Amino acid sequence: MGLLDPLFRWTEVDVLYSDEARLQGMLDFEAALARALAGAGVVPGSAAAAIAGRCQAAYFDARALGLEAARAGNPAIPLVKRLTALVAQDDAAAARFVHWGATSQDAMDTGTVLQLRRALDVLEAELGRLADGLARLAVAHRKTPVAARTWMQQALPTTFGLKVAGWLDAVDRHRLRLLELRPRALVVQLGGAAGTLAALGDKGNEVVLALSRELELGVPGLPWHTHRDRLVEVATTLGLCTGTLGKIARDLSLQMMTEVAEVQEPAEEGRGGSSTLPHKRNPVACAVVLAAAMRMPGLVASMLAAMVQEEERGLGGWHAEWETLPEIVGLFGGALRHLTEAVCGLEVDPRRMRENLETSRGLVFAEAVQMALGAALGRAGAHDLVQAAATQAREERRHLRDVLAMDDTVARHLSPERLHALFDPAGYLGVADALIDRVLAAHAAYPGSGR
Amino acid sequence: MGLLDPLFRWTEVDVLYSDEARLQGMLDFEAALARALAGAGVVPGSAAAAIAGRCQAAYFDARALGLEAARAGNPAIPLVKRLTALVAQDDAAAARFVHWGATSQDAMDTGTVLQLRRALDVLEAELGRLADGLARLAVAHRKTPVAARTWMQQALPTTFGLKVAGWLDAVDRHRLRLLELRPRALVVQLGGAAGTLAALGDKGNEVVLALSRELELGVPGLPWHTHRDRLVEVATTLGLCTGTLGKIARDLSLQMMTEVAEVQEPAEEGRGGSSTLPHKRNPVACAVVLAAAMRMPGLVASMLAAMVQEEERGLGGWHAEWETLPEIVGLFGGALRHLTEAVCGLEVDPRRMRENLETSRGLVFAEAVQMALGAALGRAGAHDLVQAAATQAREERRHLRDVLAMDDTVARHLSPERLHALFDPAGYLGVADALIDRVLAAHAAYPGSGR
Amino acid sequence: MGLLDPLFRWTEVDVLYSDEARLQGMLDFEAALARALAGAGVVPGSAAAAIAGRCQAAYFDARALGLEAARAGNPAIPLVKRLTALVAQDDAAAARFVHWGATSQDAMDTGTVLQLRRALDVLEAELGRLADGLARLAVAHRKTPVAARTWMQQALPTTFGLKVAGWLDAVDRHRLRLLELRPRALVVQLGGAAGTLAALGDKGNEVVLALSRELELGVPGLPWHTHRDRLVEVATTLGLCTGTLGKIARDLSLQMMTEVAEVQEPAEEGRGGSSTLPHKRNPVACAVVLAAAMRMPGLVASMLAAMVQEEERGLGGWHAEWETLPEIVGLFGGALRHLTEAVCGLEVDPRRMRENLETSRGLVFAEAVQMALGAALGRAGAHDLVQAAATQAREERRHLRDVLAMDDTVARHLSPERLHALFDPAGYLGVADALIDRVLAAHAAYPGSGR
Amino acid sequence: MGLLDPLFRWTEVDVLYSDEARLQGMLDFEAALARALAGAGVVPGSAAAAIAGRCQAAYFDARALGLEAARAGNPAIPLVKRLTALVAQDDAAAARFVHWGATSQDAMDTGTVLQLRRALDVLEAELGRLADGLARLAVAHRKTPVAARTWMQQALPTTFGLKVAGWLDAVDRHRLRLLELRPRALVVQLGGAAGTLAALGDKGNEVVLALSRELELGVPGLPWHTHRDRLVEVATTLGLCTGTLGKIARDLSLQMMTEVAEVQEPAEEGRGGSSTLPHKRNPVACAVVLAAAMRMPGLVASMLAAMVQEEERGLGGWHAEWETLPEIVGLFGGALRHLTEAVCGLEVDPRRMRENLETSRGLVFAEAVQMALGAALGRAGAHDLVQAAATQAREERRHLRDVLAMDDTVARHLSPERLHALFDPAGYLGVADALIDRVLAAHAAYPGSGR
Repeated sequence: MGLLDPLFRWTEVDVLYSDEARLQGMLDFEAALARALAGAGVVPGSAAAAIAGRCQAAYFDARALGLEAARAGNPAIPLVKRLTALVAQDDAAAARFVHWGATSQDAMDTGTVLQLRRALDVLEAELGRLADGLARLAVAHRKTPVAARTWMQQALPTTFGLKVAGWLDAVDRHRLRLLELRPRALVVQLGGAAGTLAALGDKGNEVVLALSRELELGVPGLPWHTHRDRLVEVATTLGLCTGTLGKIARDLSLQMMTEVAEVQEPAEEGRGGSSTLPHKRNPVACAVVLAAAMRMPGLVASMLAAMVQEEERGLGGWHAEWETLPEIVGLFGGALRHLTEAVCGLEVDPRRMRENLETSRGLVFAEAVQMALGAALGRAGAHDLVQAAATQAREERRHLRDVLAMDDTVARHLSPERLHALFDPAGYLGVADALIDRVLAAHAAYPGSGR
Repeated sequence: MGLLDPLFRWTEVDVLYSDEARLQGMLDFEAALARALAGAGVVPGSAAAAIAGRCQAAYFDARALGLEAARAGNPAIPLVKRLTALVAQDDAAAARFVHWGATSQDAMDTGTVLQLRRALDVLEAELGRLADGLARLAVAHRKTPVAARTWMQQALPTTFGLKVAGWLDAVDRHRLRLLELRPRALVVQLGGAAGTLAALGDKGNEVVLALSRELELGVPGLPWHTHRDRLVEVATTLGLCTGTLGKIARDLSLQMMTEVAEVQEPAEEGRGGSSTLPHKRNPVACAVVLAAAMRMPGLVASMLAAMVQEEERGLGGWHAEWETLPEIVGLFGGALRHLTEAVCGLEVDPRRMRENLETSRGLVFAEAVQMALGAALGRAGAHDLVQAAATQAREERRHLRDVLAMDDTVARHLSPERLHALFDPAGYLGVADALIDRVLAAHAAYPGSGR
Repeated sequence: MGLLDPLFRWTEVDVLYSDEARLQGMLDFEAALARALAGAGVVPGSAAAAIAGRCQAAYFDARALGLEAARAGNPAIPLVKRLTALVAQDDAAAARFVHWGATSQDAMDTGTVLQLRRALDVLEAELGRLADGLARLAVAHRKTPVAARTWMQQALPTTFGLKVAGWLDAVDRHRLRLLELRPRALVVQLGGAAGTLAALGDKGNEVVLALSRELELGVPGLPWHTHRDRLVEVATTLGLCTGTLGKIARDLSLQMMTEVAEVQEPAEEGRGGSSTLPHKRNPVACAVVLAAAMRMPGLVASMLAAMVQEEERGLGGWHAEWETLPEIVGLFGGALRHLTEAVCGLEVDPRRMRENLETSRGLVFAEAVQMALGAALGRAGAHDLVQAAATQAREERRHLRDVLAMDDTVARHLSPERLHALFDPAGYLGVADALIDRVLAAHAAYPGSGR
Repeated sequence: MGLLDPLFRWTEVDVLYSDEARLQGMLDFEAALARALAGAGVVPGSAAAAIAGRCQAAYFDARALGLEAARAGNPAIPLVKRLTALVAQDDAAAARFVHWGATSQDAMDTGTVLQLRRALDVLEAELGRLADGLARLAVAHRKTPVAARTWMQQALPTTFGLKVAGWLDAVDRHRLRLLELRPRALVVQLGGAAGTLAALGDKGNEVVLALSRELELGVPGLPWHTHRDRLVEVATTLGLCTGTLGKIARDLSLQMMTEVAEVQEPAEEGRGGSSTLPHKRNPVACAVVLAAAMRMPGLVASMLAAMVQEEERGLGGWHAEWETLPEIVGLFGGALRHLTEAVCGLEVDPRRMRENLETSRGLVFAEAVQMALGAALGRAGAHDLVQAAATQAREERRHLRDVLAMDDTVARHLSPERLHALFDPAGYLGVADALIDRVLAAHAAYPGSGR
């Protein structure tokens, strides 16, 4: 927990990837393995108890294990050696059965899966909070007109509620993806040195089942030492999630620009200041989320690249995951936390949204006029007429309505009142409201929503 | 279809991404939109027929449209203009309703989805073929001993059937992932310029439903112009699939090395030769698959990076997908096709596999001896004894069995016959057979398997 | 040259990567090799002439070669076979010496280097045009005040000229990088099957030197079949260049937003329109450049990943380059061309730039006031006073100057005239002008600049 | 320094990126800035001394600063605040001038550059050690025959010295690249809030020059707050370097395979063991290097993606660098250190190399025979004859020499003695020796080599 962690990560997730948590994950495996072996009659029950009694991270020195791991090639080797020595202090006979039948990767992978389960629990709950926050925002602003912007140019009026409903819809899809991957990702790893469980004679499958019951994890078809899609899918899915968070943050940051100023991140003492500029209120949450969105594709790519693992144990590919997957979880956690706070406390300025609809001097209503004229003139004819008026309005810095009001063709088909009404955003929102309803209904039906 | 396409891609998939296919995708949208609009009473039925009659790629010149697209910013704009002109030749009234209520991205995205559906159909069928080929191979070699290799070093005996079952298990997981993403990815896009469907008045949702029925696509919660997770999930999932193909190809290429020579890609006239070396038989399929596995992470990263799309239409992010997604589908298709052919015609040399188990002069059986001695000496004691013998055997270039046979402690616990038997691979395969059965059973239960 | 190429690529660069250009690159190698062999007395001079006479792409059918390459594993193998057959038609004796002593990769790599040299020539010239266009813009707007924006918020006044000078400075650095990599990248490849040139007996080095003279390429220390840093450096350098283009495009796109409207891409018939919105003028060049900036990091990553090539010829890594490097060159070329055109025809609106400096109601001058008060109050005291005033101004929607004018402390230290002057952007531009001069001077000194 | 750092990183480099080092980098900037301001007469000399006296990381609590940075958005803001408070304890007047005229990014970027300079010093020295170790190996094995392998198949004989010379040549190219980037990367950052140095009035450039003299860094054309190519080039260049390290490690790992066994990483107590297999000696250095080579492309991609930074201060892009660049330097340092140790202590087995040349039953000499017959039969005729013999040899598991000895055509052109001699690797090494000499000469001429 150093200089940059509080900014980029979230304690509730990141603690799962502390050295201590990593050690505890492996030790939870070793303890459960001992119990499973005892249950299957492979080792004495007393040995299991003695082993489990020492499976606590506090007994171990991560730094010392790290130095040995630098030679051994992975941290499970010195951990098992040290665990054996500790158990031997208590019960020499039990020490003979530490790590029985297992390989280093069994301990490390199962430990990773256990950490991941805790992380997913926390992250899914927070995604739920974000979704609920968005749902509230969509409800509150379902009638708030705002400019829709395409290619970063004002296009048409829409509502802020519909913008938010789009964000919500995507977040809820991600929640479903995370549910779907759980049975694939949250499985036990136990294969012994080569995946045959040979060291357990004919008891291999029995022990795997017992181990999975101990840890409440699924049973894989076979050991997956070099089949990493189970874990990499977590990475790709969090990559997808982060893409959506980045999209939301990009939108917010554009709406927060000085010249737009439609929303603001929640105000807080010491938040978003500047070391020299007294007036600044920087969008810190957006910066953190966007930074994560820039870093994540590369990290996901690393996980995908590392899938090409050789035969029964990868050379380098497996190692490449050890820091990358925690990084992915940690960065996503930090970004999610920041965005949830920003969304839940977002300051929305409907007045400014409406004012900005006037920035273009009516051009944002061009399609409304075109559709109104289209019935009489055809789509192409109306398009040409309005395009010419729009160009004139832009060049002469006049309001489109005023230009159109001078046009004989327009006058023939639209009364002054009708023309005026076409420049009211509330009159050209299509089915925005119904779309919001559909998304909210789906959200409400989502398991655990509506809190 | 040029110089490198036949090597890297697969005609049945790649044709979906030809310019013609891309045009046809958009035209299928325009035709279906016209029918949907007619069904909803927005445009006359005669107009729909006239429009649909011109929605064939053969009427369009991709090169000419491309030159206009370079100025317009996307190919749908000149396509709609040209379609309108063509329809006008047949029925001037109908031409007024071309693309009615839609925006360029509606046409392009729905077209992409339609192409993608065809691609997924083809790819899933081929993945099924690969899986079936692997299943046959696992059955045929379930008893064939071969060295398991960890860190690219011989570790223990296993069976070739178990190696193959591991590949199969992963491939079947990917097939499930592809099924799960279909309802998210295969949905219609129709939102109009800003996602409100404002140009359709109050008929927006009705038209969306009709359009989805026309195209047999799902209905999204709302337009997803800048929510790209639907498409990007296809990319990440094909990225996962490619990782597994790469892992299989890496394994095969290692087993194909001159010094290992346990398998060979199918022989074929003109395949894998060299421009100068008369004896070469190069693993072309592996090269293609491994090349795809190296390129895919970067391409998936591009798709993830492009998710950060601004407000109602992205500036650059949307454009970044247009070539990247087809590239991903095309490279995966080519790799899949090559690997399926290699697997289905793989030449396996069980004799050489058994010979290679002798390469290490018995070291590959070290764990078997250790476990046999472990009951008497404890795991640690046995480990130390065998490790010392292994070091001696390596240094003196002797067989481990011979070194052990001279050891008094060994002699005390293991008869010469028992010691000899420990160096038989068939005696130390653990539950390999049962694991193969489990994977085959799951495969057989998979929808559409066993063909 | 299809539907998307005119938008994303640039003919002058892309043609280098057409199938025809790729074939010609290899054929140029074969012709030069034949001459070099003749020069070294390895083959008869008549053979060289006969071979060179057939080394024209027009004699070859890329599609047919592609189909053979799909089996052979690379296109050089069928090309050499076909070339041999063609030469045999003219001179049976000469046909014996086609490709003498070389391997496929020698032809493909040297061909790639030849294509790359042409591409670099074109790209460097265009980078020069871009730099010159930026220099002109910096000169024209060296006094034009505009808001500097940090974290996408108005910070201080700066000049548009200084913004542009920053772009120019980066572009000129890239030009230097491209010059530096030339001697590493533009070298001949000739090693024979394994890099020993064994097939040339003791004439190997002599032939390499002669070949390099023929092609005007450098001589490498030794064959670099699996040492790809020479080519990958081109990729990483174009990646860096694209990052800068993306930064410029992002800046332009933000300044082009409807609410900011400080610049516009050049107007052109049919440029940046919309299929439905009559008033839109979309920043097409920015979209193309930003799309390239999103795709490039993944493509560069693919090249870096492919560097891990096995022993004397890579399996997959080499193949992964064949399409990726042309893609990088092509996308960069397209982005560069679009940006150069946008910059050279950029419409700049100094009036709007000055108006936007009023958007914040004086907050953008907060630091100027703070520094003026700092002499008397200290930096911290001044910061606190101005920060409080800024908060009040924001909350009450008042101008900062008006709030400060009511403050007794301010009144004590600043006369009304002095206070008023602090809100003039021209008074707080620091050394902007001198910085522009420095950059322009460096640009003028750059070889070939100032055209 | 935790569980995985000793394995993946190298203390001498990693310590540069500890929190303490990061703080010290910023503090070195603040101290030098104070002195530069004093030198330019902007602040009193006594203030500079008082400020510099507190610019030591030991006075600061990284964890507490981190918590504030999470709100402020960067660690420089709370650092400056805390530094100001500390200086005020000593000299209230001096405290007014802390960070005078600078912005957070000035402190953070210059600090990064200072850290980077130390890292480059260490890394370049170690690259020199690696190069020297390779040079020694190339000399020692310049005559050691070994199989050249293409597509992971034996191709021809070469020498181990030539393989090593290829590695050396690439490493020396990287050393040159690192020298070339120094003047671009190692420059001072000082621009104030918006890059105009406005807060320093007309003293801006004078202070920049003084600061650069204080820190012995270069002077940039103008502030480069959002022009990140200077730093990203370090990332891409280390990416290139890592690619080469990965290539060497891949080669070594293939030569270390049980079935090949031509080289071994240095033996060391506790190195490369297994938690269960007593005989294993795992290539730990290769695993670490290959893991870095898999992770690096994604990390470099993140740096490239983050180059698109907005206007005068990036939102997210700048933040994305803070952990990514140290990660790149750290992973490269660890990989470099591991590989240097492995190369300097590499165990080479020339006997086994020669034995492996017999694995193919003479096929590895096929080209030698073909070239010998080519003079008489032509290249194509000889190719066909030898290819047929090779196929026969493979199918009948006979030695190619024995098959050829039975062939009448061969007998007509080659005496039994000549045929026998063609199967001697020493006779078909081309100009391997001369190539090694060329590379060694270039290495010896490299500044600082030959230690």
